Amino acid sequence: MSLSIVGSVAFDTLFTPEGTREKILGGSAVYSAIAASNFMSPAIIGVVGKDFHDEKLAILSKRNINIEDIQIAEGNTFHWTGSYLEDINSAKTINTEVGVLGSFKPRFSDTNAKSKILFLANNDPEAQMEAIRQSQSKLIAMDTMNLWINIKKEQLMEVVAASQIVFINDEELKMLTGGYNLISAAKNLMKLVSSVKYLVLKKGEHGSAIFGRDEREYFTIGAYPLDVVKDPTGAGDSFAGSFLGYLADKEICWENLKEALIMGAVTSSFTVQEFGPDKLLGVTIYDIEQRKEQLKKYLAL
Amino acid sequence: MSLSIVGSVAFDTLFTPEGTREKILGGSAVYSAIAASNFMSPAIIGVVGKDFHDEKLAILSKRNINIEDIQIAEGNTFHWTGSYLEDINSAKTINTEVGVLGSFKPRFSDTNAKSKILFLANNDPEAQMEAIRQSQSKLIAMDTMNLWINIKKEQLMEVVAASQIVFINDEELKMLTGGYNLISAAKNLMKLVSSVKYLVLKKGEHGSAIFGRDEREYFTIGAYPLDVVKDPTGAGDSFAGSFLGYLADKEICWENLKEALIMGAVTSSFTVQEFGPDKLLGVTIYDIEQRKEQLKKYLAL
Repeated sequence: MSLSIVGSVAFDTLFTPEGTREKILGGSAVYSAIAASNFMSPAIIGVVGKDFHDEKLAILSKRNINIEDIQIAEGNTFHWTGSYLEDINSAKTINTEVGVLGSFKPRFSDTNAKSKILFLANNDPEAQMEAIRQSQSKLIAMDTMNLWINIKKEQLMEVVAASQIVFINDEELKMLTGGYNLISAAKNLMKLVSSVKYLVLKKGEHGSAIFGRDEREYFTIGAYPLDVVKDPTGAGDSFAGSFLGYLADKEICWENLKEALIMGAVTSSFTVQEFGPDKLLGVTIYDIEQRKEQLKKYLAL
Repeated sequence: MSLSIVGSVAFDTLFTPEGTREKILGGSAVYSAIAASNFMSPAIIGVVGKDFHDEKLAILSKRNINIEDIQIAEGNTFHWTGSYLEDINSAKTINTEVGVLGSFKPRFSDTNAKSKILFLANNDPEAQMEAIRQSQSKLIAMDTMNLWINIKKEQLMEVVAASQIVFINDEELKMLTGGYNLISAAKNLMKLVSSVKYLVLKKGEHGSAIFGRDEREYFTIGAYPLDVVKDPTGAGDSFAGSFLGYLADKEICWENLKEALIMGAVTSSFTVQEFGPDKLLGVTIYDIEQRKEQLKKYLAL
């Protein structure tokens, strides 16, 4: 019942139609770990620079996130600047200061190397491969982003080929497969890579879906309806984190995977309601359960 | 238990990634009437030119569609040329030969004027308004397209203000309201126009949703998963036609509206599997029921 998350711990500078934030807490591992921490105590395997203040690490510890494998390296923390001004549903990278993430090599404690689930949150596929080499987890899940599909597709496909669960958004799935039909793209990717048992498709405001290898294993849900999306950053990360955190102490069967998808949808709907992880940090399992019941009413046949 | 459909009866020339078709049967009223005819016997109120062959009308009669209010006028039938080569989810108009549709003024027989439901399928808002003036239906439903939002928005809003059910796709809803969030756009439109009791949002491959005036009245479903979409033409029309045909002999209550949405999703999934109405014409209520059960399995919580 353990989950090790390898990914970025970052500063984010964000521009959305609802406002601007400078150098706030961010990163794929941060969002997914906070989301997962509603269900269990996940570990982050990552790196920060000397400019990353202890109180930011304390925010994570307070959520019962194990931070012993977050290295503190000479240099600056990874800093991403992104904009959603043109399209609220699609992040545009304005600037990337790679900092200490550029030479990041994940290092696992003995306990974290033996976690039930290894989650490779969005990160350089080479760091993801290194994590795969060190981990003894039986279940590997991964996520990525358009950048890696563009510049490191070959290495990325190696990571996919070592994974059992793939999280991907609609734009990335089309990029990765070259198809324009999401259903056939998902099926083709799973045909191509036999290790992948489940593909989780994230479609933002349009909801999500999970594909299994069996034709009957397809399940799709709408997103929780929100009038205002302040900042979509971390939605996908917290979707995956919640999905995996929920599954960490459960049997990996179709019924539990369906419920995990709903948990992911609900948790990420909180994420986008405020800038950065502000809202997510205040969310409790009670909030999640309540919104889950509401979402189920909207989806009930 | 009757449904009168005012809309275009047309020739379509189509370009999709899956092929090309020239001057095949099309039109908003045609697609919606064929779809509705799985549940009851709808009437078309429309116009064709002298170039529209009797055997095409016979295709409609054979599906138990009442064609007595299809006028045959001097001139050519409306001919739309559209392309989905750039984006399979969004039609691009290449050419429009308006023909007899340009001076179309709907004329209702006494029976058709008294139908339970009047459906204003996509058409010039001025023709839609004329239909509203002539009809005695208690329930008016309407659809439109980006063209009318661009060039006749004011007249279109008059049609909206006379309707109880609005069918609209995601792109059109954003255009019409100027918003980028679909949920708030839908709510804003309903706030603005108090006549509208239900808004049906069509999102193509991303599914559909229905909004009522009560906060609790929201229901969203994924699309039936298809590997191949040959031609999206008529998907929205057959969605609406099936939705209304299903409702024609039923009480307009939330449970029936939810089922109607599923019927719309299922029927339109057949439409897009072949060019024009080819597939839709061969569909039976048995096919619809079978696929509905399958879709419900994919959506069941």
